[in-house]
Amino acid sequence: MSTENGGTLPPGDWYVEEETFGYIQGVLLRGRLQRHRSPFQNMEVIDSQLFGRCLVLDGALQTSEWDEFMYHEMLVHVPLVTHPDARRVLVIGGGDGGTLRRVLDHPQTKPVQVEIDASVIENSQRFLPSISNGAFQNPRAEVLIADGLQYVREHRGEFDVVLVDSTDPVGPSIPLFEEPFYRDVYETLTEDGLLAVQSSSPLYMASDLQAQVRNLRAVFPIVRTYLGLVPAYPGGLWSYTIASKRYDPMRVGKADIAARLSKGAIAPRYYSPDIHHAAFVLPPFIAEILS
Amino acid sequence: MSTENGGTLPPGDWYVEEETFGYIQGVLLRGRLQRHRSPFQNMEVIDSQLFGRCLVLDGALQTSEWDEFMYHEMLVHVPLVTHPDARRVLVIGGGDGGTLRRVLDHPQTKPVQVEIDASVIENSQRFLPSISNGAFQNPRAEVLIADGLQYVREHRGEFDVVLVDSTDPVGPSIPLFEEPFYRDVYETLTEDGLLAVQSSSPLYMASDLQAQVRNLRAVFPIVRTYLGLVPAYPGGLWSYTIASKRYDPMRVGKADIAARLSKGAIAPRYYSPDIHHAAFVLPPFIAEILS
Repeated sequence: MSTENGGTLPPGDWYVEEETFGYIQGVLLRGRLQRHRSPFQNMEVIDSQLFGRCLVLDGALQTSEWDEFMYHEMLVHVPLVTHPDARRVLVIGGGDGGTLRRVLDHPQTKPVQVEIDASVIENSQRFLPSISNGAFQNPRAEVLIADGLQYVREHRGEFDVVLVDSTDPVGPSIPLFEEPFYRDVYETLTEDGLLAVQSSSPLYMASDLQAQVRNLRAVFPIVRTYLGLVPAYPGGLWSYTIASKRYDPMRVGKADIAARLSKGAIAPRYYSPDIHHAAFVLPPFIAEILS
Repeated sequence: MSTENGGTLPPGDWYVEEETFGYIQGVLLRGRLQRHRSPFQNMEVIDSQLFGRCLVLDGALQTSEWDEFMYHEMLVHVPLVTHPDARRVLVIGGGDGGTLRRVLDHPQTKPVQVEIDASVIENSQRFLPSISNGAFQNPRAEVLIADGLQYVREHRGEFDVVLVDSTDPVGPSIPLFEEPFYRDVYETLTEDGLLAVQSSSPLYMASDLQAQVRNLRAVFPIVRTYLGLVPAYPGGLWSYTIASKRYDPMRVGKADIAARLSKGAIAPRYYSPDIHHAAFVLPPFIAEILS
C-alpha cells in the first residue's frame, strides 16, 4: 500500500468504479471478456484477480464469482425458510441465475423467473456459469423474458414468495422500488405470502433504503430489514428487506431453520441458522435510519 | 458510476490505497493536511469528502472521522463488558485516542496507554481531535511514550484488560502478532484478565488472522474472534479477537451488558447488547478459516 502515488492508479489494467459520493473501488484485471449493449442496458464481463469474473451493468458491478454466494444466499434463504412451505416462488430480475439456483436448493419450490433482458441470462451462462450452476436447465424452473412490472399485474394470488433481484434504483429499475409496484406484488402473493428485496447500501445509499422501507411499510404489515456482507459492493455491507403478510422472519426458530437446510441438503457458505438471526441485529446508527 | 473510464481515475485529487491483492480503494480529497516522517513511520492526514479527515500510517488508512466509532467501540466495549470489573486497562498503540476514549467511557477504569510514536498522538490531537475527544487530557488516563513490547515485560500481574490497537502485521508491528508477545501479555494480566486485539480482515488477510489466532490459542484457554464493520477498511469487514484466562465473551448476558452501558451512561452508535452477541456469529466460510 502506498500513498506516494495518491492520485494515480498503479500499473496494470484496472476496472475502476466511481460512486457518486467521492469513493472508488478498483480491481486489477486479467482480462475484459465481453462488452454488449442490449436494448435495456450496457453490459460488461470482466475477469479480475481478486473477485474472478464479474458482471457489470450500466457501469455498476452486479456480482462476482468470488462473493456471489454471500448476496444470493441472503436474498433467498432468509425468506424461503421464513415461509413454512414456499412452493410457487417468483424471481424478478436476477439474470445471472444465482438467485434461481438458491431457490432450487429448496426441494419443494417451483420457481418462475421473469428477467427483462435476455442477454443478461445468455452472457451470464456463457461467461459466469458457476453462478447459475445449471439452474436455467433445471426442469422445475420456468424462465420468462418479460417485464416484471407487467407480470405481477397479470398474476394475482399465485405466489408464496416473490424475490426482487434488481439493479439499484437507477433508470429503468426505479419503479421496482416504489409503492405502486409493491401494491401489485401484494396482490400477486397468496394470503400468507411474502416479498424479499435487495434494499441498497445502508452506509452509502441510506436515503434510498429509507424511501424503500417507507414504501414497503405502506403496503405490508411486517417489514424487516437485515444485513449481509458483499465485499465487491461499496462499503462491503448490503441490506435486504422482507415484507410479509403473516410470517415474521425474526420469529423463525433456529432448530426449524437447521431442519429445513438439512431436509434440502443445503450447505450454505454464508448463511446459517445463527446468521439468520444475527442478520436482523442492526447497529444503532443503522436502526436509526429506519426508525 | 462508469466503466467507460476503466483504467483511469475520475477528475479530482484522489487518495488511492493499493492493497497487495489487486484491489484499490480511493476517496476524493478536499485537502492534504499534514505529511510527517517520524522515526517509526510515515504519517499523513488527509481530508476526504466521504470519510472526513483520515489518519494514514505507512500508506495504510488507519482511521477516519466518519467510521472510527465502529472500530473503536468494537475493540473496547466487547472486552470491557466481558470482564466484570476491569479497572486497570492497558492500551498498546492507539495513538489516535479513539480506544482510550472508549475505555474512559467505563467509569471504573484507570487506563494506561503506551504508544511508541509521540507524533501520532500529537498529530491526531491537532488534526483529528473528534476521535480522542479530550481523552488524553482526562486525569484518569496515564499516557506513556514507550515500546509496548518492553512495557508488558516489565509489568507483571497488573492489568485486568490489555487492548492492542496496532497497525497491521507489517514491519515494526509484527512482534505484536506473535506468540512471545502473547506470553508476556498473559503474565502482565491479572489472574482473570483478558486481552483484545484487532485481528485483520477475514476476507483479504485470512492467513494473518489464522496465524494470529493460532498464536493466541497457544497461550490462552479461551480465544474468540468476532466481526464488525469498518467501511474505510478494504472489504468493509474487520475482525477482533479476545483471548481470555477466565471469562468467555459469548457468555455475557444481554441484560448485564445493558446494565453496564446504562451505569456508565454509554450510548454507542455501533455496539449494543444484541450486536455483542451477533458479532460472534461467523458465516460458515469464515468459521472454516478458524477451525
